[in-house]
Parts: sequence; structure tokens; C-alpha cells
Amino acid sequence: DTKTGAPKPGDGAPKRSAFAPLDTFPHRHIGPSVSDTDAMLQKLDPPVASLDEFVKQVLPPDVLSSRNLHIAGPRADEEGYSESQLVARLRTIAGQNKVLRSYIGCGYAGTRVPEVIKRNVLEGPGWYTSYTPYQPEISQGRLESLLNFQTMVTDLTGLEMANASLLDEPTAAAEAMTLSINALPMSRQRRKNKVYFVSHLLHPQTIAVLAARADGFGVEIRVGDVLANNSQAVKDVGDDLVGVLVQYPDTEGGVDDFRALADTTHKLGGTLSVATDLLALTLLTPPGEFGADVAFGNAQRFGVPFGFGGPHAAFFATSEKHKRKIPGRVIGLSKDRLGNPAARLALQTREQHIRREKATSNICTAQALLANMSAFYAVYHGPEGLRRIAERTVTIARTLQKGLQDMGFQTGRRGTPEGTFEPVQFDTVIVKVASAQETLAVAVEQKGINLRLLDDTHVGITVDETVEQQDLEDILSVFQSFSDNKAPLDLEAIASSVGYAAQPTPAPFARSTPYLTHPVFNKYHSETELLRYIHHLQSKDLSLTHSMIPLGSCTMKLNATTEMLPITWPEFANIHPFVPPSQAAGYATMIAELETDLAEVTGFAAVSLQPNSGAQGEFTGLRVIRAFLSQQPDGAKRDICLIPVSAHGTNPASAAMAGMRVVPVKCDPGTGNLDVSDLEAKCAKHASELGAIMITYPSTFGVFEPAIRRACELVHAAGGQVYMDGANMNAQIGLCSPGEIGADVCHLNLHKTFCIPHGGGGPGVGPIGVKAHLAPFLPGHPLVATGGEKAIGPVSGAPWGSAGILPISWAYVKMMGARGLTEATKVTLLNANYLLSRLRPHYPIMYTNSKGRCAHEFILDTRHFKDSAGIEAIDIAKRLQDYGFHAPTMSWPVAGTLMIEPTESEGREELDRFVDALISIRKEIEAVEKGDMPREGNVLKMAPHSLRDLLQKGEWSRPYSRDQAAYPLPWLREKKFWPSVTRLDDAYGDTNLFCTCSPVASESEA
Amino acid sequence: DTKTGAPKPGDGAPKRSAFAPLDTFPHRHIGPSVSDTDAMLQKLDPPVASLDEFVKQVLPPDVLSSRNLHIAGPRADEEGYSESQLVARLRTIAGQNKVLRSYIGCGYAGTRVPEVIKRNVLEGPGWYTSYTPYQPEISQGRLESLLNFQTMVTDLTGLEMANASLLDEPTAAAEAMTLSINALPMSRQRRKNKVYFVSHLLHPQTIAVLAARADGFGVEIRVGDVLANNSQAVKDVGDDLVGVLVQYPDTEGGVDDFRALADTTHKLGGTLSVATDLLALTLLTPPGEFGADVAFGNAQRFGVPFGFGGPHAAFFATSEKHKRKIPGRVIGLSKDRLGNPAARLALQTREQHIRREKATSNICTAQALLANMSAFYAVYHGPEGLRRIAERTVTIARTLQKGLQDMGFQTGRRGTPEGTFEPVQFDTVIVKVASAQETLAVAVEQKGINLRLLDDTHVGITVDETVEQQDLEDILSVFQSFSDNKAPLDLEAIASSVGYAAQPTPAPFARSTPYLTHPVFNKYHSETELLRYIHHLQSKDLSLTHSMIPLGSCTMKLNATTEMLPITWPEFANIHPFVPPSQAAGYATMIAELETDLAEVTGFAAVSLQPNSGAQGEFTGLRVIRAFLSQQPDGAKRDICLIPVSAHGTNPASAAMAGMRVVPVKCDPGTGNLDVSDLEAKCAKHASELGAIMITYPSTFGVFEPAIRRACELVHAAGGQVYMDGANMNAQIGLCSPGEIGADVCHLNLHKTFCIPHGGGGPGVGPIGVKAHLAPFLPGHPLVATGGEKAIGPVSGAPWGSAGILPISWAYVKMMGARGLTEATKVTLLNANYLLSRLRPHYPIMYTNSKGRCAHEFILDTRHFKDSAGIEAIDIAKRLQDYGFHAPTMSWPVAGTLMIEPTESEGREELDRFVDALISIRKEIEAVEKGDMPREGNVLKMAPHSLRDLLQKGEWSRPYSRDQAAYPLPWLREKKFWPSVTRLDDAYGDTNLFCTCSPVASESEA
Ligand SMILES: Cc1ncc(COP(=O)(O)O)c(C=O)c1O
Ligand SMILES: Cc1ncc(COP(=O)(O)O)c(C=O)c1O
Ligand SMILES: O=C([O-])O
Repeated sequence: DTKTGAPKPGDGAPKRSAFAPLDTFPHRHIGPSVSDTDAMLQKLDPPVASLDEFVKQVLPPDVLSSRNLHIAGPRADEEGYSESQLVARLRTIAGQNKVLRSYIGCGYAGTRVPEVIKRNVLEGPGWYTSYTPYQPEISQGRLESLLNFQTMVTDLTGLEMANASLLDEPTAAAEAMTLSINALPMSRQRRKNKVYFVSHLLHPQTIAVLAARADGFGVEIRVGDVLANNSQAVKDVGDDLVGVLVQYPDTEGGVDDFRALADTTHKLGGTLSVATDLLALTLLTPPGEFGADVAFGNAQRFGVPFGFGGPHAAFFATSEKHKRKIPGRVIGLSKDRLGNPAARLALQTREQHIRREKATSNICTAQALLANMSAFYAVYHGPEGLRRIAERTVTIARTLQKGLQDMGFQTGRRGTPEGTFEPVQFDTVIVKVASAQETLAVAVEQKGINLRLLDDTHVGITVDETVEQQDLEDILSVFQSFSDNKAPLDLEAIASSVGYAAQPTPAPFARSTPYLTHPVFNKYHSETELLRYIHHLQSKDLSLTHSMIPLGSCTMKLNATTEMLPITWPEFANIHPFVPPSQAAGYATMIAELETDLAEVTGFAAVSLQPNSGAQGEFTGLRVIRAFLSQQPDGAKRDICLIPVSAHGTNPASAAMAGMRVVPVKCDPGTGNLDVSDLEAKCAKHASELGAIMITYPSTFGVFEPAIRRACELVHAAGGQVYMDGANMNAQIGLCSPGEIGADVCHLNLHKTFCIPHGGGGPGVGPIGVKAHLAPFLPGHPLVATGGEKAIGPVSGAPWGSAGILPISWAYVKMMGARGLTEATKVTLLNANYLLSRLRPHYPIMYTNSKGRCAHEFILDTRHFKDSAGIEAIDIAKRLQDYGFHAPTMSWPVAGTLMIEPTESEGREELDRFVDALISIRKEIEAVEKGDMPREGNVLKMAPHSLRDLLQKGEWSRPYSRDQAAYPLPWLREKKFWPSVTRLDDAYGDTNLFCTCSPVASESEA
Repeated sequence: DTKTGAPKPGDGAPKRSAFAPLDTFPHRHIGPSVSDTDAMLQKLDPPVASLDEFVKQVLPPDVLSSRNLHIAGPRADEEGYSESQLVARLRTIAGQNKVLRSYIGCGYAGTRVPEVIKRNVLEGPGWYTSYTPYQPEISQGRLESLLNFQTMVTDLTGLEMANASLLDEPTAAAEAMTLSINALPMSRQRRKNKVYFVSHLLHPQTIAVLAARADGFGVEIRVGDVLANNSQAVKDVGDDLVGVLVQYPDTEGGVDDFRALADTTHKLGGTLSVATDLLALTLLTPPGEFGADVAFGNAQRFGVPFGFGGPHAAFFATSEKHKRKIPGRVIGLSKDRLGNPAARLALQTREQHIRREKATSNICTAQALLANMSAFYAVYHGPEGLRRIAERTVTIARTLQKGLQDMGFQTGRRGTPEGTFEPVQFDTVIVKVASAQETLAVAVEQKGINLRLLDDTHVGITVDETVEQQDLEDILSVFQSFSDNKAPLDLEAIASSVGYAAQPTPAPFARSTPYLTHPVFNKYHSETELLRYIHHLQSKDLSLTHSMIPLGSCTMKLNATTEMLPITWPEFANIHPFVPPSQAAGYATMIAELETDLAEVTGFAAVSLQPNSGAQGEFTGLRVIRAFLSQQPDGAKRDICLIPVSAHGTNPASAAMAGMRVVPVKCDPGTGNLDVSDLEAKCAKHASELGAIMITYPSTFGVFEPAIRRACELVHAAGGQVYMDGANMNAQIGLCSPGEIGADVCHLNLHKTFCIPHGGGGPGVGPIGVKAHLAPFLPGHPLVATGGEKAIGPVSGAPWGSAGILPISWAYVKMMGARGLTEATKVTLLNANYLLSRLRPHYPIMYTNSKGRCAHEFILDTRHFKDSAGIEAIDIAKRLQDYGFHAPTMSWPVAGTLMIEPTESEGREELDRFVDALISIRKEIEAVEKGDMPREGNVLKMAPHSLRDLLQKGEWSRPYSRDQAAYPLPWLREKKFWPSVTRLDDAYGDTNLFCTCSPVASESEA
């Protein structure tokens, strides 16, 4: 028997011990109190007596699970850990991780996160709880910061256009490849043979991810020496060439001259992409100046900790020519209604709405929070500060090389002919040793140092800004133990003999162009100034610290402080992803428990945590399905993927990227449900080619469809696999599960259902759960053992993706326990139906089930106001800002509508405030309908109202008062959030794509 | 040779190692860059070529120190630790503290700080960097929270009036005593014999502090059994009685019926004060219901960590009758110009301005930040949650008692006749043992548990909300090792046999009145709701995260994140102040280093960190002086304290409290300097009675007085000691020092000069430094060895006062190093003189030295605008809010003026913004002077302008536009801070003193 309301001590829960802790978590996470839920059940239309009865009206009986969830916890009663118990357990787990010094490099470098940024951004709920800046008027803070990020990237890479982050460096490489495909003339895109030539000196994980991604596009990845014999290997590709990818500095630290290669590539009609390092570019000629078309890399060393692999922001830049092909989110500068400069997500329509199966990228959630940290890092240090860090790094690397040479080691950059070594140009030193394995072992044991194993006789050492003199001495002492030269080392003397002052970066590598010249990078260098800048930007952004963000399909629930604690603990933050497993035992414990619990919640046999977004999960799941099918008789040709028309745009995009052909399945226009007869027909028609169906449950319309089991059976019967999009998992936990319903794979968005904060547009984690038959195919990794026995190639650069934020979801599950999780689901459904019941008298609701109930979200149909009052969904969305709310999801999944998802974390008072706002807006619309207000220039069309708008000089000549604009409901006088600009001019922004910091002139305009 | 400008790498500083860290701190702490300081020197009037030359124009030559400061650091070059080096060192020091479980009680109990409060308040710069809410229009957030604190205290104590915190429980006891004195009729106040009767069951540190404080008031503290023989001992005091002080529950956990004692006390004309515990009062009859006139205690267990003794907020409540006698800051509800309710500091004029030697309290800085944490704790838990915590605590204590009884121990509350034991009523259990010392030792060694040593055969155990079942088992197992009964314990069974349900608190102790019924304590119980409430309040408050707070005499400099880190580390936060020293070795290291460095900076021989505010430092220093003098021939009668008329109000108040007679010394009205001939005359006149002079340096007028050495010599020659008020120490460090100048004692405000954030009105630390001859008298402590051999009694409850925040100052000193500290002083002087030079053409400056220079602050003379335009300092102060600035210190030290102190942390751009604002205001005044604007209702008189004011309905009929009101300068359009209310009505507030949360009706008013 399940209990009603939030689990609070002493209200009918199983008898608690007299000593049971009181700092239990579920009643902090779940908004409504027990008495609120009772009252809300009464307000439903029609009312219901109990939460359990209510649940039966929402879920179809054949879907409701019969078993009880089990989550291992501190006691047998399925209550979770209390907050303090959890912190105690976390400290134990953290203690199992060993934080040693890692010079492994390979795309990850040590960095000092400035404490002011850590505390105020990474640990600041104003930054981490905001959503992707879809509503620019209440997001100018992070939009400005992301513009800073883009400016930093364009300046340092020497290219004209950058995006606001990608998931990681290897997936950025994959995006470079797809951009290269898109850049080919159509005739060449259609060629059967397509070769993407990749330097063997890329990081191994980049090559592995790229190879796995190339598959679906029918592109061959050819790995080789791109420079040997005047790039003969590249020339040999001829017309099959899609592009060339090199790394600069490369994975072994080498810096090469790619000017001739750029010419060769371009002559062959290909695109030259360069994986690079932002810090190195403060000293080196940027890719944009030697002919690169694309440059990308990991911004991690700009102030984002290792986190055992992530999350970090990858950056991606390209030339003017390709600017409309750039993947991911791009921030652009536009104007608001008053003509003031204002930033926005440019080209936004590309996202969920269009492209679909024509898409070559499925990126959606990216790494906004980490991009912002890196941007602030650049703002804090400025060009001079960054250059000093880079120069010091070079000095240390060269001192290391010289010190090793003095001991008799061959060391530096491996040259040609084999066995020669060249001077170190940046941060990485290769050393020839008798036994690399033994060297590594001695380094760990004697000095607590991790080096990189390159092959049996070579080790790599990558240094960074955290290296101090003592560290350098320790590294050298490890090697000295293998050398006959035991003379004490005078590091200062070595440094001055190799110092950058005496031996600058040689031409053509020495950077001559300035960078980060915009004032923003040159004025916030004291902590006070940076602190104020961070808080000033923050003050422009609406986040969960202000009010509910009822974005349908986004599950903006509480990101509890206790969940957030561990991610900045050094034991979790400061672990390189490729350390020996013994150093990450805490992570292993936590990951194993999280996998177990997510498998339990989804009803699956196994879970992979590698994908770092929902869309990545989709792609991974489909590739797992294809790998499985390919081992079935005739399975290899099963490449049809059925996708309901209601699906999120990433579904068909992911299917296409996995090399599948998308076949749409209709939905019933009346109920929104899957058209079962159409599904039957499509299954029959494509029986021999049917690979999978992708289906979202509850549906993207927010309804538990009755025919879900039947749909699964039909697809299975036709030989296909069922992929469930788990974006809506928050409606299922503890009540039903994808596994029991009949799915074979499902991704979860830990950044929705499992409390990873959205961070203003990322990070995310999109693990997949699979049935046992698919488990062997879960993705592996080239450097760290993970995944199944028949693992597909990796989808992320790090073995467990964004491992650094997994403690958040782990903590959530463990504090909620099985009872709390189930309760949360019930309240989520209740909150949505409460809103629905209160709003139904005022707005048409699009779809409900036969009992008139929605699942965890529902769609407000606002399309008819266009006729009746000239009002569109966007006007309502913008007007909601004046009421202090973020708009619901707009025009998705149905154009012209609003989709509302409250989550369980919102309390009744907040729900009521939101309803009151929407009812008040309905009256404002009515005034237009009745002709009391004009169809143009009314309070809705002019929304949102910034202060600059309301306080402007001169006569006030609008049909409504300033007071009406600002304070349409009384509580706004006490608590009002002000949009910092008026409505953005989207058309202007799309035609005038301008994606770096605003020119100074426009800034100083009053 | 000292260098100019902020120490930045590579700009003329001593040659740095190639490997020297780049994350050095001074250039993050000091606002202006090197090129800025050069430019600013040029803008001085007259310009100066170098910083060193400039310094010579500011300080008199005979004051300038000849030696170089030395601060032990990582290297020999007097550069400090880099930020990361400091964190590494801190981790080492933290590791030397051992966090065991402490059941020592004695006024400190374990508590769970809700993580959402810890992160968003204690670690939130929006909360910790704000100042005392002197400017209510930009402080409504913390004012509301402090009103919550006061409401919580009045509700729980059952008294009508509470203040917004005191420094700690023992000093609150002292304030109860002085209130009791003040409550006597004048005839009895003047009596020679005055006895304050104190229960022997008070915490020992309370009695010790009280005794030390009673001295100066000529009151005898008589400690005894207040209840024995119908309170015969109290009755015996007769007309000498000042009052009675009891504790409830007492230090041994006993709960007594004080109703008859209240009658007895009142009949004798005395006041009954009760030290109490907020958590206990959720279950027990509140003191206000049994006749107490005053109730006070430590709010620490409401969500504030041990911190090795503090800071914690003491609370203090009294009855309606005594409401205008309440010490410390009191928040009152008043109205703003529009008639909207708004909170403010009530009775504010009592503070620095008046009372002086008539004061019986010198409290100024209190514990606002901690009071806010405790208030949020109550908001988060609500009355039900608090009661559950209290009930669980009682259950645990009773289970413990029963478990111990079952093992054969005599245990519970010690009763009469001796040897009997009564049932436990709250959280403390006394146990009779064979050897208390041995029991304690076994508890620590075997289980990591600290118990309290009461006497050779009794130990105390105080339990709290952090105790879990395992902890209880561990405690019992310690005792079981001394018992013959080895039977396993069934705790659940014991609990149910003693459970609170079965055995409620007996009459007359069971609380029957409700508490915390105001909605604020009943609606923010989910984390989301509390988070939003915290952020909503924060959004109303101007802090250092917004702009400079140029409060003269307050030194609002950067409170760097790295400095703030350690205070929430468990190794510093979770140590009870009375643990065995071996468990606090990290603290000992840090304290010793800080004492050494502060002694070095002040030029003294020894330092005491015990006083927890500047005013407490004054009191301590004077008592040290008196103790020293009393051992000199004829020294005991040296009770005259010379104090310049320009002194801060706490100076004469402290002198009076130390039992000294204050004799004012004149200042030269032309120069502001001390009138040396008057000083000579006073020294001569009072030669045989002269105890001390208190002198602030640089003077409170912001000038390095030329005659300071002469003044010291005169006083010394007359047999007196020199006390230096170190509030202005920020102008001295590294350039001169109190010790070299001739002072014998000096207090420092670590919350000014040494970066402890002001926290909205506390915490603070006011250590004193002393010359060698005074070192033996530094204050001691009854329970922990500290202080000199001839130590005076303690001034704080904890041996090192607010030890928990000492790491902040330690970190500051260690990161700045000697070079950085000295540089900061120079830039502080430069910043002030830069402002002065830019403002002098627009406003008269009150005092400068003969070279036209001020020290670190200066006074803007705004008095003549009263005549010329009807404008007063307050109008300028309020108008500055419209420009986004906190006002300078208003009407102190000179009525009708503004005193400006920028500190070194402000950069040139911010200084310029501030000057531009003041110049713009000067033009606004000029418009009135010229008659272009009316003398009433102009933009200054109407300032500040809230949004409600500007957006109000109806016609705008003021002589200035909305735009002028809001955006008088262009940058305000981009960055504007809005006062949340209009100008407060001080007169209304003072006549209608209302000091708890506003009644609900007024809240819901639109
Ligand atoms: C239904 C659905 N599927 C997939 C996704 C993609 O998830 P992500 O943004 O994590 O890539 C979303 C994101 O909103 C979604 O709503
Ligand atoms: C000159 C002077 N002395 C003493 C004090 C009292 O210090 P505290 O507030 O720490 O008690 C102050 C406070 O501003 C001050 O300015
Ligand atoms: O607290 C002060 O008076 O500065």
C-alpha cells in the first residue's frame, strides 16, 4: 500500500525508529506538503479521494507495475539516506578515490579553478539552475557570458565563428567531420566512397569516437601520417576526400606546420579541421591563420576540473564561409524592441523543430555552465594572464626536457627519422625509457605521480598551470632513479638556460596577432571586479532561485544543495579520467550503485553512463540495437527506424546519424495517441527491414498512451527493437518502467529526472538502460575497460562520460529511497493535473487520456487566440515574464501551443501563483477579444516590459498603464523579476548573424 | 625600496623564480592595477611622482617605520602564499584538527546546518559581504530576516521584545546584569553595595565573564543555590539586590520551577534573568510565562556550527517594560514615505553617537550573519519540525539515562539530597562514575567521544539533533566497559519504555502556548521554497557584490573566496570549544601564527584573540591596563581615562564599563588634531589618577596626526598607559605601527582590516595586542588554558572567542605576505587621496594634514547645503542609493558630514563611478541652490526612489522626471540597484516600536 502525500515523519509511513533521523530528504524535495496534496486532490476536476486512486486514473492498468521498487539504503524500509547520512557516506566514498598528481595529458590538463568562480558560478544556484536561454529577455546574463566564450574561442583560434560549446572534444571532432561532409558539393556528398583522413597523432579517444560516428554516415576513417612525403597519403585519397583532421599541438605535444597540408586539402576539395588547445594558442599561430576551416578542442584547462572525465565544454570554431553549418547552439547579438543590443540563441529554429532525419547533428543539451566557467576564467586572467600561464607551462616543460636530457634520457618531441627527438614547444614531453610500465609504476608508488603510457618504451608527461617547483623535482627524481646521473638538479639554472625569453617559439609557430582585446577581458582582474561582474550578469537571469520554470519535457525540479556538494570536493573533482582504476575506487563504487539503481528504476539489465546528453543516449541506444541486430540472421539490413510524428527532433536526427532510414508513424489527431493501425501497416510493410521504433513514454503530448504495450509487441513481432525516449521518465519512476512495458533500450536524462541541474544549457548525462540481450554491446573505451564484451565504439571521450556530476544523481536516488522516488512521481502527476484542472476553465487543453487526465505535463492550446485576438503563443510566453515566470515550452511538440510541466518540487502556492498569472493573461486576451484593447500595441504584444521601457522619458501613450504592465497581480509588488531587455528581434538577429562580444561603441551607448 | 602599484609578476618586484606560482593574491585583492596607480598618482592634487613619495606626504616622518615587516611565508622574499599554496597549507592544518563527537554541552550543542542555508547564506557573498543595515532602504532583506530572528526569540522565550543578537551567551548575561542595574530606581543604582545573585548552575564560562564584567560596575557577583530553603540566600541580600540570574535548563540539564523565585526577586525590587536554550523552549514553559524579566542564550544549536567556540548569535529578550533598555541592535518595523511597512534599525541613535560614558553597554558589531542563519533554520524547520527535533533529543537523553541505569549507574539530574538523581527533562544526563577522568579518557580513545568532566566522580553527556542510534550505542558501550552488566542493549525497547509519548514533560514545565505561528515559519519548508525565500531577501540588499561600500571607519574591503573557504570545512567548523587541546592542534597552529603575525604588524609583544568585536577589544585592553596598574605603586586609583572628543562612542562606553572615569580631551577645531595643550593640561591636572588615554590613529577624522608620539609621551610621563583604537589600522600596516608609535595596547578589528566579512552586522573579532609589560594580564578562561600568567577574567565564553573565523584573517595575512600587506596600505592611502583630490573642487573637505593629504579616509563637509539648499547629509546619502552606492558613514564623527573610506580593494573605475555620482549630486544640489529646483520635493529630498514609487499609478507631478530619478548617469541603465522601499520614517518607527514580524494583514496589502 502506497501512502499519500510527501513522506513526512509520523504521518502513516511505516513506523520509524525513535532514533530515525529527521533530516530526511523527500519532504524537502517534494513541494506540496501532505495536507496540500490532500487539498489538491479535492481540487482536481473531477476530485479524487486518494493519491493511489488518482494514479489509477492516469496510468493504464496494463502499464502499472506490480512490483515495488527497491533501492539499497541505510535501512530495510526503503526510506533513503537522510541528508547527513548521505554526506557521511559520500565522505567515505570520496575517501576511496586517491587524488594523485596526473600528467597524463591526452586532452585533459590540470587547472586552477579560481575560487571566486567556483563559489559563485559552479556552486551558485543562480547559474546552475537556469535553463537553456530560450527566453533571451530573462537570460541576458548567461547569454553575455556565452558570447564571451564565443569571442574567446574565435580570438584564440583565429576563426570568425564559434558556438557556445559542444559535449566534448571527440564529439566535436565528429561534428567537424559532419560539417566537412556538409561542406562538400552535393555530388560528392552522394559518392559511395568517402574518406575522412585523420592524423595518427590525435588523442586515441578522439579517433575511437570518430570511427564509431563515421559508421552511420558511411564515411571511412583513414588514420595515418598526414605530413609524410608532402602529405602523399592525403593526396592519394583524391576525390574521395571529405576532409583532413589534425591536432595542434598533437597528442604527443608536437607542433607542426600545416600550411601546405591546408593547401593540399583545399585543392582536393576537402575541409581542414584542427583539434587544438586554447592555452597553447596564446603562444602559437592560430589555426585560422594557417588555413584551417575548423578548429575545436576541450576548454577544460580554462578553469574546469578534471571531474574524472567531465563535464567540460568543448569549443568549436569555423570560418565565415561555414558559419551557417556550425553545429550546436550559437549565441548571436540582435536588438530588442527598443533597438538596444541584446543577445539571443541564434538559428534557434534548428533545434528540436526542424531538420529531423535530415540533421547531421543531434546536439541539444551542451555544456553551458562549463563554457561559462571557462569564459570567466579568461575574463579573470585576461590576455596577459593567460599568456603568462602558457609561458610558465612551456618553461616547465622545457626545463623538464633539459633535466631529463642531462640525466641521459632521449626526450622531447618524437621526430623523424624514428629515434630522434626535437625540442618541446608546449606542455608535453615524451621520454624514451627501458620499460614504460615500470616507470609508471615507480612514479605512482614513490611519488604519487601518474604519467602516460605511450608504448612499451615511451612515456608522456603533460604539465600544466598547477605544476610547482616541487612537482617538477618529483617528476625528475622518478627518472633519476633510473639514471646513472645522480647529480643534484638546479632547476632555476636549467630554466634560465631554456627559458622562453631566451628561446621563443620559433617561426612560423609564434603567434603574432593579439587576442582577447575586448574590454571584457581587460577589466575584471581583481576579485572584487570579477565578483561584481558575475553577480551583475546573474542578476539578469531568471533561474529556479526565483520561480518555477514549467518547461514541458525539461523537468526543472529541485537541484538540492546536498546533491551538489560532492562535485566540488577535490576527491571527485581532481581525478584524471585515465588514472589507474585503483585510484578511482570511490567513483567505481558510486557508478556501480548508480547503474544498479537506474537499472532497477527502468526495469533493465544493464546501464551505460557514457553518453553525456539525451540525444547522445539516443544515438548510443540505436547503435547498440544495430550492433545486436547485425549479429542476428538478416539483421544487418534492418535499418528502418519508425518514429511517431510527435517525436522530439533529436530522435530522427539520432536515427539518421546511426545510419537508419526514418519512417514516420502517424498519431491520431483527436487523441494524440499513436495511430496503431498505421503502426501495424508500417510494421507489415517494412517487416524485413524493420530495425527499431523510437517512442517517447508518456508521449510528447504528455499522455500515458493506452496502446504502448501493443506497439512494443507489434514491433517485436516484426523483428524490430523498441527504443524508448526516457525524457519523460519522471512520470514513470516506481509506477511503471520501460523494461516492463516492453522496451529494449531507453535513455534517461539525468539532467531532467535525476536532478543534475541544467546549468543554463548543460551539462547533462544521458545514460541508456538495456535488456540483457543488448548488454554485451554497451559502449567501450580505447583506454579504460568499460562496456560489454562486444562493446560498440565509444560515444564520449571519457569512459563514464561526465562522471564528475554523477554524484548528483546518485545522491538524489539514495536520499529519496524507493518510497521517496515513487512518491515524487505521484506528486509530479498530481501537480500537472492540478494545474490542468485549474486551467481547463480558461484555456483549451490539447490532449488528455480517456479519464481526462494528463501525465506529468500537458499542452495548453493557444492557437485560436490568433484569430480571436491576434495573440500568439509567443505573446503569452513573453507576457509571463512580466509575471515573473519562465514560459512553458513553446511551439513544441505542437506549433502555436504551450507545454507545461511543473515537476514534484513545486509547492501548491507556486502552482497557484502560476495559474493566477495565466488566468490574468487570459483576461488580458479577453480585453483584446472584446475590443477593449487594440489588437496591436497591447500589453501582450508589447511584453515583456523592461525597466528601460517603462521608465523612458516622454509621454506614456500606450493603451495600458505602466502599473498594469509591471504589476498585473498584487504579489508582484513584493517580488518582481525584471526582464533586462524588451522583446528580441529574431528576424534581425537571424539575418545579421553576429556572434562575438558587442563592439565597444554599442556598449557605451546610453 | 618598496615598489609602486599592486604587486604583479614581472613589474619590478624582486626577481621571481621561473616556477613561482602565478595565482598570487595581492593583485586580486588590490583594486587598482600598476598602471592605474601610476595614473592616479598623476591625478592627485598636487600630483606625485611615486607611491613612496606620496606616502611621505601622508605620514609624519617620525611615525614612519624604519624596519621592514616580516611575515613567515613559503619563501624568503616576503611574498605570501599563492592561493593554491594557501589551500594546500590549510588542508594540512585542518588535518591536525581531530573531529570527534562532542557531548560536552556547556552551552554548545551539535547541530545540522541545513546545506541550503550553508551554501546560500554562510557561503553566499550576497549575505556575508553586506554591512550593518544602517541604510534600511537597501537592506530590507537582512532586516526582514533579523525581524524573523527577533520574532523567533520572543515567541520561544515568551517575552515581548528581543534584539537582533549579542556576541555570545556570557556577554549576554553581562548585559542582563547591566539591564538589571539600569532597571533599579536611581537611589538604588547609587547604593554602594550592589549584589547580583547568580545560580551556581550556570555554565562556568558565563559566571567567569560575568564576574569580570561586574567589576567595573562595582557590583558583587554572589554565586549560590538560588532555590535552597525557599531562596533564602537571595532573600538575605535584601535591598542590595540588583537581580537574580538562573539557567533553564541549567548547565547540568536540570529544569526547575522558578515561579516563586520570580516573586521573591520582584518583591526585593530586582530583575530575574534566565539563561535558556531555544530548542528546549519548544517543549518547556517559556521564561516569560514564569515571571522572568529577561531571557537570553546561545542560538548556536539552531544551525550554526561549533566553530571551536564561535561565532554564534546570542539572543536576548525582555519584557515590554524594559524594552527601551534592551542592549544591542534592535530591528523595528516602521513605514516608508509611501506608507508601506519597512524595517529598520530602531533606536539607532544609541549606537556610536550618544551615550558615550553614560553607556552601560558598548555593543556595536554583533552577530547578524549567524542570527540570520538561525532564523532561516527556524523558517526551514517550522514549529513542528523544531518540536520534533526537541522531542527526539529528549527521547535520546532519556534512553541514555535508562540504559545507564540498567547498567547500574546512578544517573539523571543531580537532586537533593545529594546523591539522588531525578529524571532527565531535556538533553543532558549526569552520570556518577568511579573516575570521571578515566571515563573521559576511555570515551575518547575507544570511541572518539568527548564527554564533560564535572568533578572527579561525575561526567556530563549532552545530546543533540546529530546523535544517531549508533552514537547512542557507542556512548553506552563506553559505560558498559565500566559495568558488570554486559547484556546487549535493546535501544528501541528502552526508548519505547521512556518515550516522550508515554512520559511527557511534567507540569508546570510542559509548554502550552504556541510559537512560530507567523506564516514565515510555516511556508518555506521545502528546499525550493527556502532557496527562493533566501534569494528573494538577498535581492533587496546592497552588498559588496554590487558596488563599493565607502563607509568611513568600517574598511569594507574584499572578503576573498579563498579566505572564506576554511570556515565551512568540517575540520574547522565541527570542533567544540572545550575539546582536549590535542584535538585542536590545527587551530593551535593557526592561532599561534596569527598571533605572531598580528604582533608583528602592530609592533607588540603579545596578542589575545579572545575579544569578539572591536568594542570588546577596548574593554579588554582597558581591563588589562587596570590590572597592570593595580600592581604598580598607587596604580589602583588610576581610573581616569582621557578620550578625545572625536572618539568613537564605544571608547567612553568601554572605559565606563571598565570602571574608569572619562575625561574628554579637546581637538583643534581648525585642523581636527588633538589639542596638545589641552592634553598637557589634563595630564597635569589628573597626574596621580591618570590611568590611560584612548586614541584612534589615524584619527577618526582620517588624518595621521603629527603629535601622536608627543601625546604618548605626555601620558606615559604622567603615569598613564596608551590605548590605541585600531579601527583605522588599515592605514598603518607596514608603514608604521602602534607599538613603535608608543601605544601600550591596541585592538584590531579583524572584520575591518583583516578581511572578516561584516556579515550584515557581525561577526567580528577584536583582538588586542600589548607591549610585554601587559602580556601577563591577557585574558584567561576557566576551562581552557589561555592568556597570561596573571590573566584577567575572560571577556568571551570561548577561550579564543570566535575562533571559527580566524582562518579568514590568517589566510589574508599569509596570502598577502609582508610585501602585499604594505602595498595594500599604500593603495588604501592612494585611493582615499585620489577620491579627495577629485572631490575637492566640488565639496569642502573637512580635515587634511599640512600637505593637504588625508589618511585612508576623509570627511566631506556637507553642512552648508542646509542653508544654501535645504539639503542635509541624509539627503545625499539617500540619493547615493539611486546611483547604486551605499552611503559613506553619516554624521560621524562630525554631525552633518559624510566620511568616505574606499579601501585598497576598489579599482579605479569604481572610484571614478563613485566620484561621478557625487559630482552629479552636487549639480542636483546646485539646481536647488539656483532655484531651478524647489527646496522641498526635489530629487534629493525624495530619494531614494523605489520602483513602486516611480511606477505608481496616476499623474507624475514632481519637478523631475522618472528618468532623472532612476538614471541620473548613463551607466545606471546597464547596472542599477533598486532600493526596495522609499525613505524610512524614523520618527514613526521610534515612537511605534514594533520589533517582530509584521502582522499578516499588512503583509498581504498590495
Ligand atoms: C523528448 C526528448 N527527447 C530527447 C531530448 C534530448 O535530450 P538532450 O537535450 O539531453 O540531448 C529532449 C530534450 O529536451 C526531449 O525533450
Ligand atoms: C573608531 C572605532 N572604534 C571602535 C569601533 C567598534 O568596533 P566594533 O563594531 O567591532 O565593536 C568602531 C566601529 O566601527 C570604530 O569605528
Ligand atoms: O559598527 C560600527 O559602528 O561601525
